[in-house]
Amino acid sequence: VCSASTAKSLLFRFIPILTWLPRYPVKEWLLGDIISGFSVGIMHLPQGLAYSLLAGLPPVVGLYSAFYPVLVYFFFGTSRHISVGPFAVISVMIGSITDSLEPSGKFMEADNDTNVPILNEAKRDAARVQLAAALTFLVGIFQIALGLLQFGFLATYLSEPLVRGYTTAAAIQVLISQLKYVIGVELEEYAGPLALIYTFLELCSKLPKTNVGTLVTSLIAIISILIVKKISDKLGKRIPVPIPTELLTIIIATGISYGAKLNGRFNISVVGEIPSGLVPPKAPVVSYFGQVIGNAFAIAVVSYVICVSLGKIFAFKHGYKVDSNQELIALGLSNFVGGFFQCYSIGCSMSRSLVQESTGGHSQVSAAVSCLLLLVTILKISELFRELPKAILAAIILVNLKGMFKQFKDIHTLWKSNFVDLLIWLVTFVATILLNLDMGLGVAVVFSLLTVIFRTQMPHYSILGQVSKTGIYKDAAEYQKAEEIPGVKIFRSSATIYFANAALYEEALKTKKKKALKKKHNKDKKEEKKAKVCLSVTLFICFSQEPRGDTTANGPSGSVDDQKYQNLKQPQSSDQPGLMALGLEKPPFHSIILDFSPVNFVDTVSIKTLKNIFKDFQEIEVNVFLVGCNDSVISQLERGNFFSQNITKHHLFASLHHAVSYITRNQEELPPTDRVSNLCSMP
Amino acid sequence: VCSASTAKSLLFRFIPILTWLPRYPVKEWLLGDIISGFSVGIMHLPQGLAYSLLAGLPPVVGLYSAFYPVLVYFFFGTSRHISVGPFAVISVMIGSITDSLEPSGKFMEADNDTNVPILNEAKRDAARVQLAAALTFLVGIFQIALGLLQFGFLATYLSEPLVRGYTTAAAIQVLISQLKYVIGVELEEYAGPLALIYTFLELCSKLPKTNVGTLVTSLIAIISILIVKKISDKLGKRIPVPIPTELLTIIIATGISYGAKLNGRFNISVVGEIPSGLVPPKAPVVSYFGQVIGNAFAIAVVSYVICVSLGKIFAFKHGYKVDSNQELIALGLSNFVGGFFQCYSIGCSMSRSLVQESTGGHSQVSAAVSCLLLLVTILKISELFRELPKAILAAIILVNLKGMFKQFKDIHTLWKSNFVDLLIWLVTFVATILLNLDMGLGVAVVFSLLTVIFRTQMPHYSILGQVSKTGIYKDAAEYQKAEEIPGVKIFRSSATIYFANAALYEEALKTKKKKALKKKHNKDKKEEKKAKVCLSVTLFICFSQEPRGDTTANGPSGSVDDQKYQNLKQPQSSDQPGLMALGLEKPPFHSIILDFSPVNFVDTVSIKTLKNIFKDFQEIEVNVFLVGCNDSVISQLERGNFFSQNITKHHLFASLHHAVSYITRNQEELPPTDRVSNLCSMP
Repeated sequence: VCSASTAKSLLFRFIPILTWLPRYPVKEWLLGDIISGFSVGIMHLPQGLAYSLLAGLPPVVGLYSAFYPVLVYFFFGTSRHISVGPFAVISVMIGSITDSLEPSGKFMEADNDTNVPILNEAKRDAARVQLAAALTFLVGIFQIALGLLQFGFLATYLSEPLVRGYTTAAAIQVLISQLKYVIGVELEEYAGPLALIYTFLELCSKLPKTNVGTLVTSLIAIISILIVKKISDKLGKRIPVPIPTELLTIIIATGISYGAKLNGRFNISVVGEIPSGLVPPKAPVVSYFGQVIGNAFAIAVVSYVICVSLGKIFAFKHGYKVDSNQELIALGLSNFVGGFFQCYSIGCSMSRSLVQESTGGHSQVSAAVSCLLLLVTILKISELFRELPKAILAAIILVNLKGMFKQFKDIHTLWKSNFVDLLIWLVTFVATILLNLDMGLGVAVVFSLLTVIFRTQMPHYSILGQVSKTGIYKDAAEYQKAEEIPGVKIFRSSATIYFANAALYEEALKTKKKKALKKKHNKDKKEEKKAKVCLSVTLFICFSQEPRGDTTANGPSGSVDDQKYQNLKQPQSSDQPGLMALGLEKPPFHSIILDFSPVNFVDTVSIKTLKNIFKDFQEIEVNVFLVGCNDSVISQLERGNFFSQNITKHHLFASLHHAVSYITRNQEELPPTDRVSNLCSMP
Repeated sequence: VCSASTAKSLLFRFIPILTWLPRYPVKEWLLGDIISGFSVGIMHLPQGLAYSLLAGLPPVVGLYSAFYPVLVYFFFGTSRHISVGPFAVISVMIGSITDSLEPSGKFMEADNDTNVPILNEAKRDAARVQLAAALTFLVGIFQIALGLLQFGFLATYLSEPLVRGYTTAAAIQVLISQLKYVIGVELEEYAGPLALIYTFLELCSKLPKTNVGTLVTSLIAIISILIVKKISDKLGKRIPVPIPTELLTIIIATGISYGAKLNGRFNISVVGEIPSGLVPPKAPVVSYFGQVIGNAFAIAVVSYVICVSLGKIFAFKHGYKVDSNQELIALGLSNFVGGFFQCYSIGCSMSRSLVQESTGGHSQVSAAVSCLLLLVTILKISELFRELPKAILAAIILVNLKGMFKQFKDIHTLWKSNFVDLLIWLVTFVATILLNLDMGLGVAVVFSLLTVIFRTQMPHYSILGQVSKTGIYKDAAEYQKAEEIPGVKIFRSSATIYFANAALYEEALKTKKKKALKKKHNKDKKEEKKAKVCLSVTLFICFSQEPRGDTTANGPSGSVDDQKYQNLKQPQSSDQPGLMALGLEKPPFHSIILDFSPVNFVDTVSIKTLKNIFKDFQEIEVNVFLVGCNDSVISQLERGNFFSQNITKHHLFASLHHAVSYITRNQEELPPTDRVSNLCSMP
């Protein structure tokens, strides 16, 4: 019984539709889902055509990609509102791969008559479709594997500032890649780092060759789409579904193009032949795998991260949950199946998802409806669009980028709220612009992880004081009410102590000590000034004698020679006077408390540093205590052989206040090891 | 007056000798320094010859490198005991560069008579010397620049486990590179990743071609050096200076080689011509700079890190301080000057430094004495060593590796003390073996930085309880004495909350909550069991109903449809029963305290997560409090717009105990914003 129920629960988990479809509230949801499905399907058609252009693939591939994977997601997805399918960022990533691995230059054939090399487009497109399908298959494999291994947490490495910086850069990539269609020129295909810059430069140099007909077509299309969208927004809730602007645009544009023979008369390039009907499944071409494995991984991660973050936004809004690992599996299966049917990798379009939700979609049933619409389109209608100018598709893409360009506002927001996150945004953006989309992503991830180091490497060090007998301890330099306990220094670093800042910690602690010594010395000096006795002699001693090593003043290791040399040592900071010369042999405090509550872990370097600190201070008869170590830190200290005869667990206290009470109570008692065990250290 | 004194103090700081030499205690120190200088100088001679072999350079370069840079360091260094000069790890790094940029293959010339290509060694060596000098110059520039920019802290990125793993791997590199001299075969020169593996494989394949004479020579040399060293160690303190084993070895070996005509009769390759006298300075060849800039940076960092860590060990032992930035400048100037005099980059040899200290050296005066000895050698003696077999030098190098191979013991030590540091050691070792010494270092640094992420990404989450009314709070699951406060959940993560673990934090918090709910539910169930009423019905409801989204139970956003759907949702974890069905609308606690004392910083992602947590719990009428935020975290929260109408600074408390007292005192008062301001939050 048990194994059967486990198997059943696993089945229900991996095929979510089994759970929700039988309980689908037909009356309440079906109408909304159908309306939403139609609206989304109507968007899929122009977007599919347009994004396949972006991916460097024939238009019909975009339609396939809006059909098969969406259908698979319907069965396996856990988000109810996202619209998977062709997506600009993923499309431009694929575009850079098709450009570099199957460049047009590879398919130049000498014309039989004139011997001038001309492009064999059919052959190129066939090769590219195979490449894209192989890539899609690999992406699917990666996503399924990551999902089964429960690697959904990978998404956390791509933090929000990173993803937004990345998609903004991708939008720029899309923009630059589409401008050639807008002004109607042919460009070389660049790949690798700086490809975007080269493309842009060539674009600028070819500006004079602009095809005016194409430019006018694009501008009219862009402006009319923008106006209609504005009207649709204004009408808002007064119309049940938004105006299908893009569909209208391509229908009208195709009509005009057909009627005015734009292609023939103005040399405006059009979409061309679109085969109708579905194709039989075909195994992906294995020989491409080696070349695209890195890109496949990048696409797998990016498409997943964007889908799951969008999914979570809707889930949060509507009070349900998306299962990140199941999402990986669902997307992976969609791509896996797509790889057999000439699809290219899917993502999740923000614009379509918003329409799906706002037109009353409640579940992925609307996606199934849109699939039906797509199927009809592929079978019957798509071939009608052969005269559609490519400039119109470019216009549709550009208008859809508007939302992503709005992300530039992040710079301002992050500037005000979090500087490090702004840095992550900017580095991601610049790296993605300058390198390509894969390497840019790698650089961005590594950089964002390194910020954690930067953030903890230069911590804020402070000496704490007690706030008017409350048992609360605050930075004595910043809070007037916080007063230092006489004879006790409480030292806190704002960050974990580990190899990158352990030396700094030790130095900061000793500097604070020096400052304390200096303060004391200044007081002495003032008194001396008052008495006006021996002042000049004192100053002479202070400045002619070099400062001495302060850590081993009474240490056992200093031989006569060493002591002599110490007095001769080169100056390191000119503000530390020769205390020995003034007869101050002991610092003005008997105990140091290190507040370890912000410490997340310790490593061998920090343990060594700590041991040094204990040794140095115990040599000048100052007790050192650790306070607020969490349990894992204590066990790390144990494993690292931190505790010894001189450093016992009696040096640990659970809280600052307990340590302070203990010290002030037992001030006379020395050495510390003679004290009785106390509950607070809780070994 | 002020500027003059500043200038003077700067001068004294940059030229430490001005400070210490005028106060040099001649009577006490001079004799020891002279003895130590002679001992070190005697080691410099064989090591200089040997390490230049390692660097692929003519032997005299090693002698120059033991003279000019050491003299410069005498003026600028702050360590009193380290012996700078040729060093195995740096030499092998240079060797890989000379091999790859000026390979022997480049200098094959057709013999005039036979037309068989033979190697023009003189030309190759001249090119390599120029290359090494240019590299040394660049290394010097890097080190001076880093020192002036106060980048001495860079050394902290190379933590001790990393450096030890790296030098162990370098020792393996040295071993493999020297074996060809031991068995007397010629090998191809490999460069780039896996070079070591290829070299080793070729070495194995050439084993049958071993020159028996060379092998016997090497083995005799190795064994006799080991025996004499052992005797020298045994005699220990009874002799004033250690036996100059290596010097004796090369003198005897040269004598035998000369007498027995080893080179002519057994084809044992010898050192060859050594020019006597110093060379005039020569500007480095700029054209090499572009090719070696990356390597120069790696060498600059490695040589600095090894010198400064060795220097700090001696400084700690003898109670003085080395100034890390001044060390960078001193090493930089040494290399900079060396670049003009055919030297190659220097490091700091462990074995020589130990001799320098143990023979009574007190200051760098001993280095000056060794320089004098080197000068005499270069001018008069070095040419005598032309018949010295290279196998002897290889033997000297190999014996000197003993100390570095001992570092393999680290694996055992680290295994017991700190697993992550062991991982750093191993990754560094493997990366440096498989890649070359530069790329290996890069990989090691990036990996060791990433460990900080790993360490904080999977923190330990715990619910705290109060230890028997003491005001100390400990993990309630681990400490029996720690008891949870009724109605209050205190939640702590052992690590900082940031983008890589923010989602995990939220999930862990809600899981703990769920567990609490489950506990409560189990209690209810038990009671029901006792009463044996409706049990089967309850269970039916528990398992047939799917678990519902728990975060927005009473949230304002849930419409009727949504609520319905939530009840239909797919199962996510089978252990959470349908609480709503049991009539439990509110969790069994009214307050949650998040212990933020381990939090080092917050980023936009963690702020967003926190806001969600506040929102979710406030919706089910649970108060959330943050406790122990340090000042920088509070200001980051402020900048990140964390505080709003619903989340005010009244939700902050300075300590757990204050928050708990406050909550238990004000339990009735709701909503929290109506409460009076309290001192503890200290806005």
